[in-house]
Amino acid sequence: MLLKNGNIEAIQMKSLLRINRAISRVRDLYSLVTLLASETSKVLDVERSTVFLYSRKTDELWSYVAEGESEEIRFSASQGIAGSVFRNEKTLILRDVSENERFNRTIDRTTGFITRNMITAPIINPSGVCIGVFQVINKKKGNFTDKDAEFLEIVSSETAVTIENVRLLESRKRMFESLIKALTVSIEARDPLTAGHSFDVTFLAGKIAEYMNIDADTREAIYYAALLHDYGKIAVPDSILKKPGNISEDEMSILKKHVQHTKIILSSIEFEGKLEQVPLFAAHHHERIDGKGYPDGLIGPEISIGGKIIAVADVFEALTAKRHYRDPYSLKKTLNLIISGIGTQFDKDAVLALRNYFLDIGKLKPEEVPLD
Amino acid sequence: MLLKNGNIEAIQMKSLLRINRAISRVRDLYSLVTLLASETSKVLDVERSTVFLYSRKTDELWSYVAEGESEEIRFSASQGIAGSVFRNEKTLILRDVSENERFNRTIDRTTGFITRNMITAPIINPSGVCIGVFQVINKKKGNFTDKDAEFLEIVSSETAVTIENVRLLESRKRMFESLIKALTVSIEARDPLTAGHSFDVTFLAGKIAEYMNIDADTREAIYYAALLHDYGKIAVPDSILKKPGNISEDEMSILKKHVQHTKIILSSIEFEGKLEQVPLFAAHHHERIDGKGYPDGLIGPEISIGGKIIAVADVFEALTAKRHYRDPYSLKKTLNLIISGIGTQFDKDAVLALRNYFLDIGKLKPEEVPLD
Repeated sequence: MLLKNGNIEAIQMKSLLRINRAISRVRDLYSLVTLLASETSKVLDVERSTVFLYSRKTDELWSYVAEGESEEIRFSASQGIAGSVFRNEKTLILRDVSENERFNRTIDRTTGFITRNMITAPIINPSGVCIGVFQVINKKKGNFTDKDAEFLEIVSSETAVTIENVRLLESRKRMFESLIKALTVSIEARDPLTAGHSFDVTFLAGKIAEYMNIDADTREAIYYAALLHDYGKIAVPDSILKKPGNISEDEMSILKKHVQHTKIILSSIEFEGKLEQVPLFAAHHHERIDGKGYPDGLIGPEISIGGKIIAVADVFEALTAKRHYRDPYSLKKTLNLIISGIGTQFDKDAVLALRNYFLDIGKLKPEEVPLD
Repeated sequence: MLLKNGNIEAIQMKSLLRINRAISRVRDLYSLVTLLASETSKVLDVERSTVFLYSRKTDELWSYVAEGESEEIRFSASQGIAGSVFRNEKTLILRDVSENERFNRTIDRTTGFITRNMITAPIINPSGVCIGVFQVINKKKGNFTDKDAEFLEIVSSETAVTIENVRLLESRKRMFESLIKALTVSIEARDPLTAGHSFDVTFLAGKIAEYMNIDADTREAIYYAALLHDYGKIAVPDSILKKPGNISEDEMSILKKHVQHTKIILSSIEFEGKLEQVPLFAAHHHERIDGKGYPDGLIGPEISIGGKIIAVADVFEALTAKRHYRDPYSLKKTLNLIISGIGTQFDKDAVLALRNYFLDIGKLKPEEVPLD
C-alpha cells in the first residue's frame, strides 16, 4: 500500500509540474481552470471534476467548469455537500453519498449522472474568503484516500491563487482603461463640437491596426494613444479652442502646440512594456510622410506605426464630422481624399487598411474608391 | 528505495500545499521567494537555496534570495553553472562539482562556503523568457535524485508565476498612479497660481489619515481622491478660473460646480474594492460639519471620512499658500483658525490629527495651538 502510494505521489508531482507550467503560460482564466479540472480528474482517477464559484449577488454556487456537463449547474449556497463545504471551509471526503443526508440528489436527477463518492475542497482566496469549492466525483477504482484529499487541497489553492491573480490584474486593467476614457470625456467636454471625436478615432485606429495585422500589444498601445492623442488641448486656452470663426496664424501655432503638451503629459506616465510607445504614437499624429507635418517634420520612416495609423483615423473622423462652417463629408468623398494623400500626407498601408475595412463591411464598392 | 521515495514525495506534497497557501496569502514578493527558498531547502534536505535573477541592464545574475549570505552575490550571466543553466534553460544535476569545469570557484572563495553538489533549475516566465535560476546546494544525506530535480522544477515554476504576477500587478499599479499624477499636473497647469496645490493637499491628507489610524486600503482611496479632488475644474471656463480680481456671485456658483464635475467624472471610473469610495471622498471636500457646505449641505455623520480629511487638508493648504491678494498665512495662524472651526466647518478628529502631526515633527509647540 505504501509502495502504491509512492507511485501515486510521483504521478501527482508530475501533474503539479504540468499544472504549474500551464499556469505560468496561459493567461485566460477559463482555460486555466478547465486544465486544472481535467488534470485533477486524470491524476485522482475520477470520472469528473467540477469547480463551483460563489455568486454573492444571488447567494448561489454555480459551475464555472463542470466536466461532462454542457449546461450550467446552479443552486443555493446553503444546499447540499458543496454548500456545506463552502460554509464550513473544510475539505470533506464522502466515500458513499447514499449514506449522507446532506447530499443533494436534485442535481443528479437533473443531469442524469449518478454520484457514488466525492471529495469537496473549499477554494479560499488570499484574503481568507471562501470563493467556491472544487469537487472530484466517482473514484474509478477503490476508495478516496486522505492523500487524494491533500492533492485536491493543493489544486484548490492553485485555483484560488490563479483566480485571484487574474481578477486583480483584470480589475487594475479595467480601472486604468476607465480612467483614460473618463479623461477623454472630460477633455472633450470643453469643446462640445468635437465631443466623441477621440472615441471615433480610437475605433477607426483599432480597425486599421487590425487590418494591418499589428500584434495585440502594439494595438493596445495604439488604443490608449488614440484615446489620449488630443489630451494636450487641456493646455490650450478656451479663447482659441472654442473660437467659432477663423483663427489667426498666432492662434494656430498655439493650437498646434497641443501635440507637444500631449507628449509631455503622456511621457510622465510610467507606461510599461509595449505601452511605452503610447506617448510617441500620440505625439506623431500630425506628422506627414513627406515631412511637412508637425511638430517635428519627421519623414515616413521616422514616424511611428501608431502615429501613422492615428493620423489617418484622425483626419477621416474630422472630415466626416460636422463643423460650424461645413456639413460632414460623405464616406466616399473622404476616403478618396485620403487615398489621394497616400505617400504625401498618409502612410499607404494604413490607408489601404482603412479602405479594406470599409469594403469588407460593405459600405463602399471598390470602384467608388479606386486606387488609380 | 521506492518505499523511501514514497515517503519523500508525501513530504514534498505537504510542502507544496504550504507553499501554495503562502502564495495565496502573502503579497510581498521578497517574503514569498524567501519562503519558497526555505521550504525547498527543508524538503530537499539541503544546506542552502539561492534564487538568482537576471539583470538585463548589466547582463548579470544576482542573488535575490541567498540563504546563509548577507551580501549580494553577483556575476556575469555567462559565468559558471548558473550562467550555463540560465542560457540553456535546462535543469542540471551536479552530483560532484569538483568534476565539473564550468563550476565557478570564485564565489565559494568569496563567501567561504564550500559547494559539494547542487541542482540548478531555470526560472522561466509566462512569456517563455528565462528570468533567473533556482539553485539548491549540498544535499545533507546521499545524492540528489531525478525526483529532487522534478520538485525543484515545480518550485521554480511557482517562483516564475509568483514573480510575474507581482510584477504585472505592480506595473499596472505604477501606471495607474502615474497617470493620475499626470492628470493632476495637467489640470493644475491651467492655473499657475495653484500649481502643486493638489499634491500638497494629498500629502497632508495622507498624514491626517495616518494619525487617525485609517486602514491602508481607505488611505489609498483618500490618496487618489485628494489628487483628483479639483479635477472637475476642467469644466470651469478660463474666464472664471483664471480671473485675478474678485469674482461675482454668479461666477462663484459656476466655480463651485467643479465639485459636481469632479464627482461625475470620477464616478465614470471603475474604481474597485475600497477605491470605490474615491468619487465620494472627492465630492465631499467642500461639505461642512454644520451642514453649511456645498454641493449637498450634508451634516457631520453624512460626510465621508475621506471628505472630512481632504476638507481640512484643502483649507490648510490654501491658507498657507500665496494668493494675489494676500501673503501666505503662518503655520500657527492657520492651524488656530482651523481649530476654531472644529465642529462647525471641520471634523474634530481630522483637525486633531493634523495638529498632532505638526507637534510631532516639532514645527509647533502645544501652547501655540491650544485646544480651548
